[in-house]
Amino acid sequence: MGRELIMALFLSLSLLSVPFAAEARIRHYKWEVKYEYKSQDCYKKLAITINGRTPGPTIEAQVNDTVVVELKNSLLTENVAIHWHGIRQKGTPWFDGTAGVTQCPIVPGDTFVYKFVVDRPGTYLYHGHYGLQREAGLNGMIRVSLPPGESEPYTYDHDRSILLTDWYHQSTYEQATGLSSLPFDWVGEPQSLLIHGKGKFDCSTPGLKSGLCNATNPECSPYVITVIPGKTYRLRIGSLTSLAALSFEIEGHTMTVVEADGHNVEPFVVKNLFIYSGETYSVLIKADQAPTRNYWAVSKVVSRNNTTPNGLAIFNYYPNHPRRSPPTVPPVGPAWDDVTPRYAQGNSTKARQGYVIPPPQTSNRHIVMLNTQNTINGYTRWSVNNVSYNLPNTPYLIAVKDRLNHVFDQTPPPDGYDSQNYDIFSIANNTNATTSSSIYKLQFNSTVDIILQNANSMSNKTSETHPWHLHGHDFWVMGYGQGKFDINSDPKKYYNLVNPIMKNTVSVQPYGWTALRFVADNPGVWAFHCHIEAHFYLGMGVVFEEGVEMLGRYPTSITGCGDTKSYRKP
Amino acid sequence: MGRELIMALFLSLSLLSVPFAAEARIRHYKWEVKYEYKSQDCYKKLAITINGRTPGPTIEAQVNDTVVVELKNSLLTENVAIHWHGIRQKGTPWFDGTAGVTQCPIVPGDTFVYKFVVDRPGTYLYHGHYGLQREAGLNGMIRVSLPPGESEPYTYDHDRSILLTDWYHQSTYEQATGLSSLPFDWVGEPQSLLIHGKGKFDCSTPGLKSGLCNATNPECSPYVITVIPGKTYRLRIGSLTSLAALSFEIEGHTMTVVEADGHNVEPFVVKNLFIYSGETYSVLIKADQAPTRNYWAVSKVVSRNNTTPNGLAIFNYYPNHPRRSPPTVPPVGPAWDDVTPRYAQGNSTKARQGYVIPPPQTSNRHIVMLNTQNTINGYTRWSVNNVSYNLPNTPYLIAVKDRLNHVFDQTPPPDGYDSQNYDIFSIANNTNATTSSSIYKLQFNSTVDIILQNANSMSNKTSETHPWHLHGHDFWVMGYGQGKFDINSDPKKYYNLVNPIMKNTVSVQPYGWTALRFVADNPGVWAFHCHIEAHFYLGMGVVFEEGVEMLGRYPTSITGCGDTKSYRKP
Repeated sequence: MGRELIMALFLSLSLLSVPFAAEARIRHYKWEVKYEYKSQDCYKKLAITINGRTPGPTIEAQVNDTVVVELKNSLLTENVAIHWHGIRQKGTPWFDGTAGVTQCPIVPGDTFVYKFVVDRPGTYLYHGHYGLQREAGLNGMIRVSLPPGESEPYTYDHDRSILLTDWYHQSTYEQATGLSSLPFDWVGEPQSLLIHGKGKFDCSTPGLKSGLCNATNPECSPYVITVIPGKTYRLRIGSLTSLAALSFEIEGHTMTVVEADGHNVEPFVVKNLFIYSGETYSVLIKADQAPTRNYWAVSKVVSRNNTTPNGLAIFNYYPNHPRRSPPTVPPVGPAWDDVTPRYAQGNSTKARQGYVIPPPQTSNRHIVMLNTQNTINGYTRWSVNNVSYNLPNTPYLIAVKDRLNHVFDQTPPPDGYDSQNYDIFSIANNTNATTSSSIYKLQFNSTVDIILQNANSMSNKTSETHPWHLHGHDFWVMGYGQGKFDINSDPKKYYNLVNPIMKNTVSVQPYGWTALRFVADNPGVWAFHCHIEAHFYLGMGVVFEEGVEMLGRYPTSITGCGDTKSYRKP
Repeated sequence: MGRELIMALFLSLSLLSVPFAAEARIRHYKWEVKYEYKSQDCYKKLAITINGRTPGPTIEAQVNDTVVVELKNSLLTENVAIHWHGIRQKGTPWFDGTAGVTQCPIVPGDTFVYKFVVDRPGTYLYHGHYGLQREAGLNGMIRVSLPPGESEPYTYDHDRSILLTDWYHQSTYEQATGLSSLPFDWVGEPQSLLIHGKGKFDCSTPGLKSGLCNATNPECSPYVITVIPGKTYRLRIGSLTSLAALSFEIEGHTMTVVEADGHNVEPFVVKNLFIYSGETYSVLIKADQAPTRNYWAVSKVVSRNNTTPNGLAIFNYYPNHPRRSPPTVPPVGPAWDDVTPRYAQGNSTKARQGYVIPPPQTSNRHIVMLNTQNTINGYTRWSVNNVSYNLPNTPYLIAVKDRLNHVFDQTPPPDGYDSQNYDIFSIANNTNATTSSSIYKLQFNSTVDIILQNANSMSNKTSETHPWHLHGHDFWVMGYGQGKFDINSDPKKYYNLVNPIMKNTVSVQPYGWTALRFVADNPGVWAFHCHIEAHFYLGMGVVFEEGVEMLGRYPTSITGCGDTKSYRKP
């Protein structure tokens, strides 16, 4: 309460002293990235931290502020790159932080300065976009507020943020080595779910190395969300799981969804919120239950028949003790394999009245992307239209700008697959995909439709949920469907041309499809990929290029790898 | 036997078909560096491998051949650099492979081509020179033979090589994080000693994570050196331990030392050979014992009161089964704390008659280097003259060549310490050292004396053994002594001005000193450092620069980090 008062005073003073209240400011962050031993879920292991923390510090800014992150890489031998997830980087595509696409990774000892404008209010994320570093703990949230005097179309008393993740005890090197092995050696389901960096692994699990798990370590005491009875909370929820699709709920409370990926949502009420890796939501929660006790906040894996225990936090009604366990058994959450409520949530998520950005009614290009698991020379891979993605040594942005055509495949990737003959419900007969580093060149300002078509994986009767994330743009979510997409009937039947929500990440459900539309209006080179860390690592992604010729000189700080090593002192 | 015959035939044919037998050739190697799960000592962990192997392939070449190693970095997020230990890199200082000194590290996905001439016969090493990668398994041997028709001044029937290492179960990241922590968290003594990559950890040790240790894994069956009774073997022995000083012996056999670091040694006989990290020796061993059994080959840690079990290999008398255990208890080796035989071996190691390269009788510069452990802001460091080394972001070779003076400290490091007032037998009163990235500028072709002066560490009554390695040069080992070096009396008393051995690595014993002399005749920038991996990591090293202005353009492949990121497409 005191803090809010001080903030209010501060803001009033700011209003007095600053002639234009909405004037954009520089938000300067100095970050050091390094390994530290952490016991996020009571099990001690190395985590990649920012200034000693994981999740890293929340970036807080106002619309049109410039965020400057001066990132010092203090890892021993590992490079790093950080993606600002949901920030479109208009005019600064070189600061998108996608290693291999928009920059060379930052080598140890070097300091890299990211500088970009946050041009829209809302809830965004940041995370490592190199190797599997995101899941090693290199992640955090971005909160962009409206200028003073402006307000959201909904009211609340307080604003809180939580980041949901899953957590492995094996290092990213161990995981990656397994993924690239013959035979395929998968790390399996995560050991824990973390709520804003805190989880609880069962230290009595047999077979653990001694001395590493300590159930009484305060680092793994449950995360606490303290609320004052009767007040309404805006809870900003982001997911940066490496694998898990989640359901999140607060025992005994409903949540009104009001924001998704930075866009206002026509409010709807849920008991539990489904959230996929790369998504953010704001929900409103009223602390309207019996104030004499605390309640459980629960995250739970859905869409996989899994072994990961639910993540638990405490929804603490002031003045109950924040560590006091709720007297009830935590809610068990929805059935993992019931897709019906997940489709329902997707279909309920529409642009809010008065905030609708109408989509173009037609598109210039139509790309169908079949999502499959494949093998290539025996190695397990994930593919789009039977092409598994390999990043080139020289980042595309540099390669395209400097016309280094030899550094990546110049044959365009396919705009579709043989939908007539491909049975999405069976394991593919032809298990041999190809790898490629080619990219989709989009006409500048053209409207592009993407149909993400899910299919059976390499396991019998299995189709996974894939959350797809687009860099540099928001897209309209035109519609969802089950089974094989039919271009002749499904758009008419399922597309929302009136008030579709805009997002940067959307899921495609098992054996289903999801249709997106976006305008290629942001000069740069942009990744579009499954946000499951291991899936992208194994090739489940593509890259779009548009209008690079319109860009000025890129900052040389993005160089240092591949062909740029032939560059000379000016 | 068959192999030797074929080789002989091949050599004869070569002599017939090649007009000049001694003509230099290109030895081309294609290496892929990546992580693989290995069970070197029965405990499964990630190792850095070259083409799937650790130790990596032995480079075999003839004098004046050009070795080309095309190194593809297939690590996930880690850079790499490989140093060719003992190769002077005359004219190719940029291929010395010392990250931060002679090159930027090689980023994942990139291929770097090392190309250098091996201008002298002998036994050399190679290993990672970035972070702690050497001890993760990135190491191997180089064997440079005389041209056909020339021969060593000693005879033997067969030539064998073994590399001695120590082995930790914790990853290099875990170790480095501990070393850089407050309080200092040291990994402790190695779990195993490996003989050419093979050791045996006791899988019944309590507290291990289940499923990782398998005593019957063939990967950790003992290394076997097979010999034919009556024959004489040249055994080339290299050590690339991360920490341990070793004694090596073969049960029941003596060894005649004939080569050290590529130089012929006036032969002397030992029961056990002391060998420090970075050293190589050739010994002659006659298989003259009872041929009805096998014998133990044993490596043992000396100079530390340690817990690491001895490493064991089998010296197999053909036709006994190579896996048949010797019927005897393995020799226990010398007492860990007896320095007398270690000094004796050092003093016995002299240049062989007829192969003496006489040292300059005087020197132009005299640098005393006090070796101390220190704390800086509470962090534990190792220092030279109370200066702890920090590598700059931009490698020195590039910085000096391109005159980027701002990238490292320009104040020269001290040529000595306050020897009158410093008590080498006590913990230093002043525990505050400084860090610096400054370098010693040596006059080209000048003769430089270095006195390595050992002292007490930060632990009471403890002084460690430090093996110092000089890049780009061999030095004469002028002499060894105990206690504090006295410039007025010790050179006269202890210096060997007649037939000192030349080496690239030499040890300084607890509370002792070692004097070296070298000629600064190799244009480039050269590291000189303690070869204990953690000591160099914690600052125990210096850098010499000489004659860089005489060098032509460096290959741009060494760029990519620090200030070179401002370089532009030509």
